[in-house]
Amino acid sequence: MSAPATLARCRDLVTPALQAAVDRLDRASREQSRYHLGWTGLDGSPGPGAGKAVRPALALLSAEAAGADAAAGLPGAVAVELVHNFSLLHDDLMDGDTERRHRPTVWARWGAPSAILAGDGMLAVAVEVLLEADSPHAASAAHLLSATVRELVRGQVEDVAFEGRTDVGVQECLDMAAGKTGSLLATSASIGAVLAGAPALVTTALHTFGGELGAAFQLVDDLLGIWGDPAVTGKPVLSDLRSRKKSLPVTYAVNHGGADGRELAAWLAGTTEPTDAELLRAAALVEAGGGREWAAAEARRRLALAEKALAGADLPDRPRAELVALGRYLAIREF
Amino acid sequence: MSAPATLARCRDLVTPALQAAVDRLDRASREQSRYHLGWTGLDGSPGPGAGKAVRPALALLSAEAAGADAAAGLPGAVAVELVHNFSLLHDDLMDGDTERRHRPTVWARWGAPSAILAGDGMLAVAVEVLLEADSPHAASAAHLLSATVRELVRGQVEDVAFEGRTDVGVQECLDMAAGKTGSLLATSASIGAVLAGAPALVTTALHTFGGELGAAFQLVDDLLGIWGDPAVTGKPVLSDLRSRKKSLPVTYAVNHGGADGRELAAWLAGTTEPTDAELLRAAALVEAGGGREWAAAEARRRLALAEKALAGADLPDRPRAELVALGRYLAIREF
Repeated sequence: MSAPATLARCRDLVTPALQAAVDRLDRASREQSRYHLGWTGLDGSPGPGAGKAVRPALALLSAEAAGADAAAGLPGAVAVELVHNFSLLHDDLMDGDTERRHRPTVWARWGAPSAILAGDGMLAVAVEVLLEADSPHAASAAHLLSATVRELVRGQVEDVAFEGRTDVGVQECLDMAAGKTGSLLATSASIGAVLAGAPALVTTALHTFGGELGAAFQLVDDLLGIWGDPAVTGKPVLSDLRSRKKSLPVTYAVNHGGADGRELAAWLAGTTEPTDAELLRAAALVEAGGGREWAAAEARRRLALAEKALAGADLPDRPRAELVALGRYLAIREF
Repeated sequence: MSAPATLARCRDLVTPALQAAVDRLDRASREQSRYHLGWTGLDGSPGPGAGKAVRPALALLSAEAAGADAAAGLPGAVAVELVHNFSLLHDDLMDGDTERRHRPTVWARWGAPSAILAGDGMLAVAVEVLLEADSPHAASAAHLLSATVRELVRGQVEDVAFEGRTDVGVQECLDMAAGKTGSLLATSASIGAVLAGAPALVTTALHTFGGELGAAFQLVDDLLGIWGDPAVTGKPVLSDLRSRKKSLPVTYAVNHGGADGRELAAWLAGTTEPTDAELLRAAALVEAGGGREWAAAEARRRLALAEKALAGADLPDRPRAELVALGRYLAIREF
C-alpha cells in the first residue's frame, strides 16, 4: 500500500472519532477548532479539508505493528492529532504567523484568547479521550502523552529563545527539533502499540523509529523552507530566509561554513526587510557553507536509523511495510 | 483546628512535592513558574512566599475524608495547584493584567510566549504527576482533572465573551463562575477521595461541597472587588468597577435593579477612564439595585448547600470539621 493510500485509510478511520472529541469543547472553541482543522471555512461553510494527518496514521499503524486492530490505536490517534493542533494554535500565536494553509490563523481571525483557550481545550480533551480507551494501558499512554507535551514545550521555549541569539550551535538546534518535532512523532509511532499492550522491545523500537523519522522530517522541512517549490510547499519562495530563521541548514553553515558562514551570520543579524538579491545571496551562502549538503545527508542518515530500529523488532509484515513507506514519503521529498 | 492552621499544615505537606513537579519543566519555564508561585523574586532571590494553597488543602482533606492518610491525596493536591496556576498564567495574559500580588505577571515580565508555554508545561506536569500516583484510581483522577480543565476553558471563554456584551443574564454569569471557579474547587475537594478509592456517595458529596463552595467564594470575591478594603484584598478600592467588570452583583443589579440598573448599564457601556465620583455612583447603583444584598444572600445560601452536601455523607469527624471550617473561612469574609 502506497503512503498516500495509507494516509487516506487512516484519516478515514480517525476523522469521526476526532470530530466527536472536538464536539466536547465549548461552542466557541469547537467552532475555532473545526475551522483550524480545515473542516469548515470562515463562515462555517465546508472547509478545504483536513491535513495529511501523519500522526494519527503512525498511531494506528503502531497498533497494527503490535498485532492488534487499528481500532486499538484509535484513542491514541485522536489524542496525538489533538496535541499536534494544540501546539499549532499556540505556536502560530507566539510566532505571530497570520496564515496557515493560505487561511487566517485562529488568533488572527478570532484574537489571541481564542487561540490560547481552544488550544488548552484540545489538550484537555486529548488526555480525556485517551483515558477512556478500552485498554488496561490507557494510563500508561496518557502518561507518555503528558511527558511528550512537556518535551514539545521545551522545544518551543528553545525555538523562541534562539530568535534572540546569534550563537546557536548545530547540536542544540537538533535538540530543539527533537523536542518540537521528534517527541510527538516518536509518541505517535508508539502510542497505539502501548494501548495494545505490546512488549517494551516493540514499543521502544517504534518510539525510536518515530523520533529518528522526526529528525529526518525536520531536516527536509528546513531544506524545503529554502529551496522548496512554492507550488508544492504552499509557502513563498525562500520563506525561511525571509524571516531570517535559524533553521538546521542555516545553523550548520554559520557554524561550519568558514568565510561563507561568517557572511551569512552577519546577514542574519540584520533587521531590515530583505531584498530578493539578499535572499538569493543568503541561500547561496547556506549552500556554499555546506548547509544544504549536510542537511540532506543527515536526513538520509536519520531515516536509515529509523528503518534500522524497525528492522530490529519483531513486527507483522504489512504494518512494517506501511511504516517504512510512510517514513520514506515524509523524509524523501524533492528539494 | 482553625482554617489558617489547616491551610498551613496542608501547604507544608504539598510544597516539597509541588517543587519537585515544577522541577520537571525546562529551565526557563521552571524559573518563571517558581517566580509565579511566589517562591522566588524577579532576580531569583527568595520571593514573598506561596499563596494560601486552598485547592491543595481541599485535596488533602478529601483523602482524609475518605478515611485515608493525607498522603494519599498528595498527587491530587499537586495536580490541582498546577492546574490552578496554569489557568492564572493564561488568564493574566488574556485579561492584560500586568500585576498579581503586587508583582509583575509572568507575561509582563518575560513576554506572552513565556506565559503560554509555562502554563502549558504546568498542565502537562499536572497530568503526569497524577498518573504516577500509587493508586489504582489514578487514571480516574486524571480523567476527572482533564474534564475539569475543559470546564475551566468554557468558563474563561464565556468570561472573555461577556466583556463585549451588554445583555449578560444572572444565570449565565453564575454558569460562567461555575466553570471558572466552581469546577476546579469541586475537583479539588474530591480528587483525594477518588485517589483513596472512596465510594461514589462520598466523592459525589465532596464534589458538590466544592462546587457550591466555589459559587459562594466567587460571590464573596465579587463583593470584595467592589467593597473590599484595599489593605486586606491587595487590590485598589472599587477595583472591579474601575475595569467595568460584569461581576455577579453588578449583573444582578443591571437585570433586576429597575431604574438604578438601567443607569448602571448605561455607565458600564462607557469607555472613558472612570472618575472617582463615577465609581462611587456605580457602587451606589449596584447597592440600590439590590446587587449587594442578593450576592451576600446567595453566597450564604450556596455555603449552606455546600455544608448540607457534607452532612449527607458518612465522613470521619476531624476532616469533616476542617472542611466546614475552611469553607466558612473562604465564604465568610468581611465586605
